Amino acid sequence: MAAVSTELIRKLREISGAGMMDCKHALEEAGGDIDKAFTILREKGIAKAAKRAGRSTGQGVVEAYLHRLSDDFPPQVGVLIEVNCETDFVAKGEDFRKLAKELALQVAATSPRWVSRDDVPDDVLVEERNVYEAKAEQDGKPKQVITKIVEGQVENFIKETCLIEQPYWRDPKRTVGALIAEHISKLQENITVRRFARFNIRES
Amino acid sequence: MAAVSTELIRKLREISGAGMMDCKHALEEAGGDIDKAFTILREKGIAKAAKRAGRSTGQGVVEAYLHRLSDDFPPQVGVLIEVNCETDFVAKGEDFRKLAKELALQVAATSPRWVSRDDVPDDVLVEERNVYEAKAEQDGKPKQVITKIVEGQVENFIKETCLIEQPYWRDPKRTVGALIAEHISKLQENITVRRFARFNIRES
Repeated sequence: MAAVSTELIRKLREISGAGMMDCKHALEEAGGDIDKAFTILREKGIAKAAKRAGRSTGQGVVEAYLHRLSDDFPPQVGVLIEVNCETDFVAKGEDFRKLAKELALQVAATSPRWVSRDDVPDDVLVEERNVYEAKAEQDGKPKQVITKIVEGQVENFIKETCLIEQPYWRDPKRTVGALIAEHISKLQENITVRRFARFNIRES
Repeated sequence: MAAVSTELIRKLREISGAGMMDCKHALEEAGGDIDKAFTILREKGIAKAAKRAGRSTGQGVVEAYLHRLSDDFPPQVGVLIEVNCETDFVAKGEDFRKLAKELALQVAATSPRWVSRDDVPDDVLVEERNVYEAKAEQDGKPKQVITKIVEGQVENFIKETCLIEQPYWRDPKRTVGALIAEHISKLQENITVRRFARFNIRES
């Protein structure tokens, strides 16, 4: 693959609003052709999604999913989720509601604790960091690599516990965030997960 | 109605485990006959319910309710509720699940903020009390009645905001707590609402 200049990446970022690595990969794939790279980004749903990400979402849908352990048993796990969009036109559409149902299933299957990384409380991150640090020190890792090890583990913690960062259960190569970005691109509206609740009878 | 002695009320409380006012009313209704009064309490589902109220509830069901404003609109209000009982035998039964559904409807209809009065945070009660006090003083109420007025208003606040204390929407003469007590008596197990969530798209 052709190496691409920083200048080209900067330009594509401006046009598409997409992240630096996404732009770099698209340009490499396009052999340095910026128009072709932009098309690649659009096809991946990244360009439009990023452009729309700041827009306000006052409409939406509340969706629920109840999980039965077996047919003769009442639901023992339940999920409630609120997904927002910009207009009631999109909120009424089948695609949007299907996405909300899919996200409810995701929450049921993978038990995220927060919607996005911004929602993780600082004290939780500090606590996690301390645990990883203590473990790395105990394992006798050299000081200069501990920071890197710890950051990697914090990143893994976020990918496991934040809905948007999780691998999409039906297709683990994509994140839930990518699934949402595709719908933003397709429905041409910003889409956000506002909140969810997950109840499990077995939780103490 | 016959006046009943404190001694009789105390005895009936011991036998039934029911509250003082319930015992007093039952004894008045029964003309002072303690056996008859106990039967009245049982019929009302109060005696057995009170006796079972301390027992642990590790089984149960998670139920959901989604509310549509109109047929062509997706749900804009959603409720998730966890209702617990003692055994999976009761959890599997139709009566119990119907109760859980009814409670989900109640939450959708009346927007409680907490399950019971014990769940209201102290700072919320202090804040409410301050507002009522300031209002009563501003209205020029005499100091000796302000405490009584304020306590009455705090009690009303609790009855409006706590699920268990609310009037049951389908039959406002009874509280939700009484509806649950009837099921405790009927199903012969303690039943508790562990938690609920209510999402409304319109909430800011």
